[in-house]
Amino acid sequence: MSDTTAPYRLLGVDPGTNILGFAIIEVNGKKLQLLELGVVHLKQFKEQELKLKRIFERIQVIIDVYGPTEMAIEAPFYGKNPQSMLKLGRAQGVAMAAAITKGLEITEYSPKKIKQSVTGNGNAAKEQVAAMLTQTFRIDLSDHYLDATDALAAAVCHYYQSKAFPGGGKRYSGWDAFIKNNPKRVKK
Amino acid sequence: MSDTTAPYRLLGVDPGTNILGFAIIEVNGKKLQLLELGVVHLKQFKEQELKLKRIFERIQVIIDVYGPTEMAIEAPFYGKNPQSMLKLGRAQGVAMAAAITKGLEITEYSPKKIKQSVTGNGNAAKEQVAAMLTQTFRIDLSDHYLDATDALAAAVCHYYQSKAFPGGGKRYSGWDAFIKNNPKRVKK
Repeated sequence: MSDTTAPYRLLGVDPGTNILGFAIIEVNGKKLQLLELGVVHLKQFKEQELKLKRIFERIQVIIDVYGPTEMAIEAPFYGKNPQSMLKLGRAQGVAMAAAITKGLEITEYSPKKIKQSVTGNGNAAKEQVAAMLTQTFRIDLSDHYLDATDALAAAVCHYYQSKAFPGGGKRYSGWDAFIKNNPKRVKK
Repeated sequence: MSDTTAPYRLLGVDPGTNILGFAIIEVNGKKLQLLELGVVHLKQFKEQELKLKRIFERIQVIIDVYGPTEMAIEAPFYGKNPQSMLKLGRAQGVAMAAAITKGLEITEYSPKKIKQSVTGNGNAAKEQVAAMLTQTFRIDLSDHYLDATDALAAAVCHYYQSKAFPGGGKRYSGWDAFIKNNPKRVKK
């Protein structure tokens, strides 16, 4: 089976109110390559506005540097504390806005879905997820980067989900393409 | 007492997941003028990404058209439903990101604080708030615009709060000015 799909890049993010994890992977046919993995520390910002601005700027710069066309975001949908969820929602919203302005498609996944997709077990421990990613990318995901592992896992999860659509027909890059491919999902 | 302060404009927003209210007022010394008042309907978007994109775009366009230097946002900090708060946080985050990219200062106020500032009573009914704003701006805030009243109230609240600082010394416009005026609040 020939694969005519050109290489493309995925951005995985795990936006939190204290740490933002991110990862860039390149997909070339069935080959995955890790290009960058990192965390942005936000705890030092007392003002929430500063945290949000930093998230927005960092994600835009990462997109500018690597040119990913799709973003996968780890998004917990449930939580007990409404106030924490509001703050988390703001961090997510800013991260999503940064990607929207750059024309990326955004797909969100629950932590459970990501674990399921990467390890086959929705209740896998963080260590299991890291071990699987270490094997996939043949690199040492040291403790130093453990916070970014969730972002990488989100990107890998997105890749596996995309593979489920033969020919990648369900993928779309950018807003215009999304509207073109989903005319019924957009109301003016 | 001479007032050398140049006229400036305030953007008030009340971001929700179904309706976004907004208002632009101009402050010229002690004179307030309402320039625009409106709502953006978001309920027709099934995809949350589309809602967020619309919020981001509309706020950026409003800023481009009127050039406000400050944004006041009505932000409920408490709620019972964590999932609703996450969605609300995303809407707020996107609205804030739109203002951040345009260099506006953002100040958030709780609904209670806004009512208190506008009517003198933190538990005032919506009708009381509308009546006070009708008197302030000498315009008919008809039912048609009731959803936007909260946004206008946020802007007016911000104006009253700013007045509390003699000479307006606590006001700053844009990110660079914020850092300049608050070096100790910014850690690199």
